[in-house]
Amino acid sequence: MLASIPQLGAQEFPPVSGTRLEQNLFALAEFGKKANGESNRVAFSDADIAGRKYVIGLMEDAGLEVHIDFAGNIIGRKKGSGPEMKPIAFGSHIDMVPDGGNYDGIAGSLAAIEVVKTLGENNILTLHPLEVLVFANEEGGVMGSRALAGTLRPEALEVKNSTGFTMAEGIDRIGGNSSRVQEVARQKGSLAAFLELHIEQGAILEQTATNIGVVEGIVGIEWWDVEVTGNANHAGTTPMKIRQDALLAASRFVISVNDIALANEGDHVATVGRISAEPGAPNVIPGRVLLSLEIRDLSTEKMMLLFNQIEQASKQIATASGTSFNFSPIDATGAPALTDEAIRKIITEQAHSLGLTTRLMQSGAGHDAQEMASLAPAGMIFVPSKGGISHSPREFTSAADMANGANVLLHTLMAIDSKWE
Amino acid sequence: MLASIPQLGAQEFPPVSGTRLEQNLFALAEFGKKANGESNRVAFSDADIAGRKYVIGLMEDAGLEVHIDFAGNIIGRKKGSGPEMKPIAFGSHIDMVPDGGNYDGIAGSLAAIEVVKTLGENNILTLHPLEVLVFANEEGGVMGSRALAGTLRPEALEVKNSTGFTMAEGIDRIGGNSSRVQEVARQKGSLAAFLELHIEQGAILEQTATNIGVVEGIVGIEWWDVEVTGNANHAGTTPMKIRQDALLAASRFVISVNDIALANEGDHVATVGRISAEPGAPNVIPGRVLLSLEIRDLSTEKMMLLFNQIEQASKQIATASGTSFNFSPIDATGAPALTDEAIRKIITEQAHSLGLTTRLMQSGAGHDAQEMASLAPAGMIFVPSKGGISHSPREFTSAADMANGANVLLHTLMAIDSKWE
Repeated sequence: MLASIPQLGAQEFPPVSGTRLEQNLFALAEFGKKANGESNRVAFSDADIAGRKYVIGLMEDAGLEVHIDFAGNIIGRKKGSGPEMKPIAFGSHIDMVPDGGNYDGIAGSLAAIEVVKTLGENNILTLHPLEVLVFANEEGGVMGSRALAGTLRPEALEVKNSTGFTMAEGIDRIGGNSSRVQEVARQKGSLAAFLELHIEQGAILEQTATNIGVVEGIVGIEWWDVEVTGNANHAGTTPMKIRQDALLAASRFVISVNDIALANEGDHVATVGRISAEPGAPNVIPGRVLLSLEIRDLSTEKMMLLFNQIEQASKQIATASGTSFNFSPIDATGAPALTDEAIRKIITEQAHSLGLTTRLMQSGAGHDAQEMASLAPAGMIFVPSKGGISHSPREFTSAADMANGANVLLHTLMAIDSKWE
Repeated sequence: MLASIPQLGAQEFPPVSGTRLEQNLFALAEFGKKANGESNRVAFSDADIAGRKYVIGLMEDAGLEVHIDFAGNIIGRKKGSGPEMKPIAFGSHIDMVPDGGNYDGIAGSLAAIEVVKTLGENNILTLHPLEVLVFANEEGGVMGSRALAGTLRPEALEVKNSTGFTMAEGIDRIGGNSSRVQEVARQKGSLAAFLELHIEQGAILEQTATNIGVVEGIVGIEWWDVEVTGNANHAGTTPMKIRQDALLAASRFVISVNDIALANEGDHVATVGRISAEPGAPNVIPGRVLLSLEIRDLSTEKMMLLFNQIEQASKQIATASGTSFNFSPIDATGAPALTDEAIRKIITEQAHSLGLTTRLMQSGAGHDAQEMASLAPAGMIFVPSKGGISHSPREFTSAADMANGANVLLHTLMAIDSKWE
């Protein structure tokens, strides 16, 4: 597909405006901003809906023709000047985890729009049609990109996020059509390429003073709902020795997940992020605890090995405490995905031509690019995250770092546009 | 105050109806009944309000003149035949913990009404006025009896229970007046006596095949809200070794509470019944966890000793995990309380005269009698709980056991009535 690697100099295209990019990011952060100055814009919330409207405005201003597909993805299109060609797609997401930060997904979405705005301001037309994608509900299991990849299962539509809305209800709230979600699935090979800029969400670029991360692959993610069942009883009249305390067993489980992750070699991670105890009163011994379990690695086999060890540990805890454990796999997860080697090479060369340093790295976070990689050759550009902080209000990436990433995105896009079919 | 211990035979008063008592209990269980057949009637809920209305009907039917005081307590009065005397008060509560059982508080409340009904049916008039008390929101920190004892602090009114209502809102919902709660406080010595029948909520009576528990004292209860602060971060990009996982630290805390309770000699209990993790998403390392800590014992010093050990353990956990712990004492608790020795003796003798076996025992659960003991000589009658199960839909006490307890309540009441001023 790739004819030859273009050797375009930095001088051939005007740079994006880092100032404008950051200003747009600050403006978007106003949607969902709480009294403490932090933003909360979980998918399907009123703040999400308001923020999406703002972003649609930016897209239209950049010269994109915008519509919302049945899955709630915001899609902005611009025609190409060449003969009929497949579109080059690029973008990210603007929804947040609960009490998340203003850069995860957002920096990449606004960089994509900034690239189109810059091209338009300089009257540069691409040969390929362009498609800017702002994916819906990325944080709830890359929902929008799964819909495009045709991997969103109907059962997932019944899963509620922290807003209390199911995916189906949420899709309808944000302008999609939950009963027609399956129709948005794209054909494999229908896009020329997919590119995503994203903050690193780790500290490797910062610690190695590197400008640009060139993503080799995105780890797979497996989720389970874990249910611990004990015996709810009166906290005052039930002696310590005869309790079947589901929270005590769940606590031993949380520790064993951590111990097992540490005991195995590798870059995998295992996390319990959600917990609730029932009935949940200070004067009642918990009879049932619900937890989430998430495991990530570039290898599916490694994830299963870890899970088997964790499941084994839970059996020992159950036996010792008179409780039982039940694991339900949740289909809101992603398989490991590799990026396209040719695109990695283009990103690296374009970054170097702009005088930027690069580093090949894996992504510990799931991304929409993971799903899009099944439709088209995909590439990901990482920019540094201060302190490696992510999914937190303290996320930060400088305007200069975002501009570097957006310039690499622009040059990569133009290189692909000029040389690919 | 006690002139002499009366020696009344069982034959002197007609027995209560165990069948009616159980039927009333089953009828009350309909309020808040869920599809699975279990009842849920947390204080201030719509089901609580409906259940209270039903109980008021029973009280009026038994010949009581009923009103709701400013704290939301249901108060039923019946005049005595003698010269001006202090009332003899008795009763319990009908609110539940979330997903609790149909006997805790309810058996005692309905037994009190059954006693008055039985006396009325047999045209037996007491010398003392009678006061049946159905205390409001017992499970939320003996709210109603604290109001009567004058120990309900204004700050407690801002505490929310699982319905989402604050105590102040709840009091207004159930027919009280939150701005005038302080006015319901009674004078010490204004009641001749207070009696409460309650299910044991433990398995001692059942295991020793004893009919009636004569309560010596009620353990004190101390509650704390515990806040664990770590660092919320992305579950995919934050290596295991550099996490400051608040839930991992909280899990070590739950285990240390259990270990410390087991390591110390005695009948004390320590419980973590409530937990929540923030932000609470499967793909975010928890940055903040909130837990409840409850300690019970007959000795305040012992409770403080245990708390100090737990606090010490939390400091070690915090240091090792890069987290911090904060403990906030919650004023919804009770000091240890002893029952009146003379009343204990009357209960024992009256039970024996009815052919019932008795056992002196302590109450591991807090009760309204604990607060009422500061106003009047107080006595408590325990009836067996099947399997010792309590604060659970599987609570059960047979109609025969409830009738035994109610007959002892009736005879104790009449003994006090005839011999006390």
